[in-house]
Amino acid sequence: MRMVDLITKKRNHEVLSQAEIQWIITEYVAENIPDYQMSALLMAIYFNGMTDEEQAQLAFAMLHSGDVLDLSGIPGIKVDKHSTGGVGDKISIPLAPIVASLGVPIPMISGRGLGHTGGTLDKLESIPGFNVNLSEAEFIAQVKAHGEAIVSADTKMAPADRRIYALRDVTATVEAIPLIASSIMSKKIASGTNALVFDVKVGNGAFMKTEADATKLAHALVDIGKQANVQSVALLTDMNQPLGITIGNSLEIAESIAILKGRGPKDVHDLTVRLAGHMLVLGGVTPSLEVAIGLAEDVIRDGRALAKFKQLIKDQGGDPTVVDNPKLLPQAQYQIAVKATAAGYVTAMDTNALGVAVMQLGGGRAKKDDQLDLAVGLVLHKKIGTPVSVGDTLATIHANTENVDAVVEAVQAAYRIGAERPERLPLIHQIITD
Amino acid sequence: MRMVDLITKKRNHEVLSQAEIQWIITEYVAENIPDYQMSALLMAIYFNGMTDEEQAQLAFAMLHSGDVLDLSGIPGIKVDKHSTGGVGDKISIPLAPIVASLGVPIPMISGRGLGHTGGTLDKLESIPGFNVNLSEAEFIAQVKAHGEAIVSADTKMAPADRRIYALRDVTATVEAIPLIASSIMSKKIASGTNALVFDVKVGNGAFMKTEADATKLAHALVDIGKQANVQSVALLTDMNQPLGITIGNSLEIAESIAILKGRGPKDVHDLTVRLAGHMLVLGGVTPSLEVAIGLAEDVIRDGRALAKFKQLIKDQGGDPTVVDNPKLLPQAQYQIAVKATAAGYVTAMDTNALGVAVMQLGGGRAKKDDQLDLAVGLVLHKKIGTPVSVGDTLATIHANTENVDAVVEAVQAAYRIGAERPERLPLIHQIITD
Repeated sequence: MRMVDLITKKRNHEVLSQAEIQWIITEYVAENIPDYQMSALLMAIYFNGMTDEEQAQLAFAMLHSGDVLDLSGIPGIKVDKHSTGGVGDKISIPLAPIVASLGVPIPMISGRGLGHTGGTLDKLESIPGFNVNLSEAEFIAQVKAHGEAIVSADTKMAPADRRIYALRDVTATVEAIPLIASSIMSKKIASGTNALVFDVKVGNGAFMKTEADATKLAHALVDIGKQANVQSVALLTDMNQPLGITIGNSLEIAESIAILKGRGPKDVHDLTVRLAGHMLVLGGVTPSLEVAIGLAEDVIRDGRALAKFKQLIKDQGGDPTVVDNPKLLPQAQYQIAVKATAAGYVTAMDTNALGVAVMQLGGGRAKKDDQLDLAVGLVLHKKIGTPVSVGDTLATIHANTENVDAVVEAVQAAYRIGAERPERLPLIHQIITD
Repeated sequence: MRMVDLITKKRNHEVLSQAEIQWIITEYVAENIPDYQMSALLMAIYFNGMTDEEQAQLAFAMLHSGDVLDLSGIPGIKVDKHSTGGVGDKISIPLAPIVASLGVPIPMISGRGLGHTGGTLDKLESIPGFNVNLSEAEFIAQVKAHGEAIVSADTKMAPADRRIYALRDVTATVEAIPLIASSIMSKKIASGTNALVFDVKVGNGAFMKTEADATKLAHALVDIGKQANVQSVALLTDMNQPLGITIGNSLEIAESIAILKGRGPKDVHDLTVRLAGHMLVLGGVTPSLEVAIGLAEDVIRDGRALAKFKQLIKDQGGDPTVVDNPKLLPQAQYQIAVKATAAGYVTAMDTNALGVAVMQLGGGRAKKDDQLDLAVGLVLHKKIGTPVSVGDTLATIHANTENVDAVVEAVQAAYRIGAERPERLPLIHQIITD
């Protein structure tokens, strides 16, 4: 086989065979195919797409380029959740203990934030002492003992994906749905889970801006999951405004604790228990989604989920007293109110801009190796549909620098205020199971 | 500027500015932009194309990446011809002496064959002693003294194009019209000529298979020429069958000599004098194409063109007695007749396959550094429209290996024989001047 012929094939809108895709990944990892041929292929895929079969084969080839975690020693149906990334999306943190407290083992492998999006691992690290870098043996032992763990991916998993992702990042080939889907799935299948719930974000704070793209990605993820014998459900959920009322690492941990205490904002509470419901169904607790959601509400109400979260923190070396006293989390030096300059209703929010604003405060990364300030962020007092008077506080900036004029302006600009109350946004746009 | 942003721009169908294109070429040549970003950009150009302005700026940026030949010391309007490459296209060889014998200086820079196409330099090297590697000073001195030279491009001309072309070759981005046009023009403008005639081949033996693509390329070439102050005319000419009756290096030199003796096959004779006519008009000999063609016919008839060819061979170190005795050219050991297995008319010829057949005999290159057997090739006894009986000799294979069964089969398969006499193919499809 010659790589140039396979690039030509894809460029000409032909379908690559399983053997061809396998050969490309094997030879690329062995460094027999240079980056310049791989990037040309990736750009051809950007334009011409891949069939369901091709993207699944790509995921499997990348999966088998490295280690696959063997979780068979853990009894029960292991369930994980994956979000495609948004602003204020702290849901994994309350979700894992809720589901684990109902007996479903949660071996959760999470990521870090980049650009306007936050990452679960960064948020957890704002809990003093919390260690996300467990060994494989530690990870398995913890899930076996207490039914939950949230860790960083092992670098030995899906090395082909790691190399290809780095190449996509510098060759303008990130935004290709078959590449996004196969990248996610290669890592998720490698993590050894039996079932997966996908939270595919759609809207102005998500990577998928349109319902059409998000639907396509959701179908791709579920389809690859099926082909890999991983039971999968995808929820298309709204990201036209941040989730909940906080953006920023320790602020989001505080909000997660509030959710587990039954005092979370309605949107993020509702989405958490809905996602928990789907995970409980996949985990075999009950076939009824309604019953499952009720069980999730129960363990929040009776404190079992909160206790499970304390256990998680303790297991991973963190200080569990933050649960009772969230002030122990890193606190920013300055709190600056952002005032409304017009009256009416919040009609829209530039969610991406709010994520970028937090990044500019130091709470997110522009580049992969940027250091984070875990204390900084935004607390949102107004969200879409809320009435606003001139001078009302829209949001509070938590900062460690005194002059945040640019961020104040950015936050003001991110709020669209109009005369008419906007229609309510649906929280869940679609549920995709095939 | 960041290369990833410029790739994104082109990927999103936006237009790159002159400054951006200049920056890309400068930084690429300086090795500050890696090949994997350049190949992603090239693939994006393959899909999204370039505007007239973009492709001209790309040609100029590549042109200025290296030396530009200064031919101002040679009096008169210097004219060159460029063919986009075909099978049996030996026209440069008789063309240069015809035009030079009428006083127009011809500083011709030619190429080598690759794949199914032959190259003028390889053909000339079948003349014992012929040297295509002149220094710049030798090249200029020869054109000054005798009005003609046919040489290889200097490696210091358009180095950016050289590197980009090598990358395109292995990343399936050769077949992009803006890239083809800017590549040709960067080298042609660097060669210092004042005027250019393009022979853009169209048909099953050409790189441009369709009239639409060939027309687009012709317009691109003429347009870039105009912007560079190089008077340009493009002829779209037929490549649905080989030109003339020979394919193969020394066989094509023998046919070129026949043309200069007025005994060439009609198609290749006619195209030679038409192209000569356009060159003579651009060279200021006469404003009338008809008069110019008549002059070209005259210098063939009275032997002046043949004498000029002898002079060219002598000037470049070759043995001019081959003109009187073409048997002095390399001769193949075996001559194998390919017989017709059906009766009727030749309705079509797979021209590409005939070129590949000669390559398989050793007369062409599969890879750039392949060594050639200059003696081998094909002589075609039947062309499109000729009546054929079973057992007639379609072509004679000239080979230096005895067993050429595969080539016999390939040649037989390349001839399509049908009951009805096909319509005559036009030799010249279009003349494009703007």
